[in-house]
Amino acid sequence: MRWIALLLLAVISGAGVIAFTAPTSQQGGGEAVPIFGIKMPAGFRDWRFISVAHEEGNLHSFAAILGNDVAIKAYRDATLPFPDGTIIAALHYSHVPSEENNKVFGDPQSFVPGPPTNVQFMVKDSKKYATTGGWGYAHFDKDGKPGTEAALQTCAPCHAKATRDSVFTRYAP
Amino acid sequence: MRWIALLLLAVISGAGVIAFTAPTSQQGGGEAVPIFGIKMPAGFRDWRFISVAHEEGNLHSFAAILGNDVAIKAYRDATLPFPDGTIIAALHYSHVPSEENNKVFGDPQSFVPGPPTNVQFMVKDSKKYATTGGWGYAHFDKDGKPGTEAALQTCAPCHAKATRDSVFTRYAP
Repeated sequence: MRWIALLLLAVISGAGVIAFTAPTSQQGGGEAVPIFGIKMPAGFRDWRFISVAHEEGNLHSFAAILGNDVAIKAYRDATLPFPDGTIIAALHYSHVPSEENNKVFGDPQSFVPGPPTNVQFMVKDSKKYATTGGWGYAHFDKDGKPGTEAALQTCAPCHAKATRDSVFTRYAP
Repeated sequence: MRWIALLLLAVISGAGVIAFTAPTSQQGGGEAVPIFGIKMPAGFRDWRFISVAHEEGNLHSFAAILGNDVAIKAYRDATLPFPDGTIIAALHYSHVPSEENNKVFGDPQSFVPGPPTNVQFMVKDSKKYATTGGWGYAHFDKDGKPGTEAALQTCAPCHAKATRDSVFTRYAP
């Protein structure tokens, strides 16, 4: 019976790992965006890190770019075009000075994420989204409300100008 | 025998999950930093996202702040002080304009990570690092070379000024 006990232990440990890596602050679901029919993917806040971004101009925006496992593998293997199943998430925040940090540093040098503004996704499905370069696009505001049809129509034409399969973000090593 | 087969399947699946979440672009190890004796932790590039940071002044630095599972749980549960076993990683890059993005946007608005500059760690061990607020500090330059003793001596006094258990970074939701 000893090996059965060991098996049971392994099962329990395995289940523990699954439970520990699966939880998320974002449960996904909700309303789908127009045009592309994408809902917020479950667990994206637990995805791995691709890069950071900072947009000035009228945006004053800070972003973390995260990817699902397919995205991370494609980036690390330099696979282009990205394979079907790739999802890239951009978590946007306002770009604000940190009063606490600047007091310590004695210099107004430190900027941190302010309140979340929106989260956006690129979903690769070369058949379903054949007319938009193989990518579906989604935008949800800070309350999870999907972007408008007019707003979503602007995604693909702009991303088509990126030199690597419609993706602007490069992998930060 | 059927439940044994199911158990075996579960064990294999469990092992699959472990293998799938473990790979890393950074294998860890190498030389330990002075004072705190910390080596680069294996797999930190796969850790989950805590926040982003941008430092101007003399730094022009972009950072991704990632945490091991203990760190992420503590942040999400708002546990203070952070429990022993917490490790927080700061992956630093230069903060540079993106020529490709700015050409598309028609405005010099877009900043992205340039080459990596260094990676830093805070390791919580309330006994081992009792004299420095329970935290050990590590700095490795872009080639993995540990920071000097003089540089590492500056970490704890500055972090002690942070209002939340010596940690400046807050969790970006």
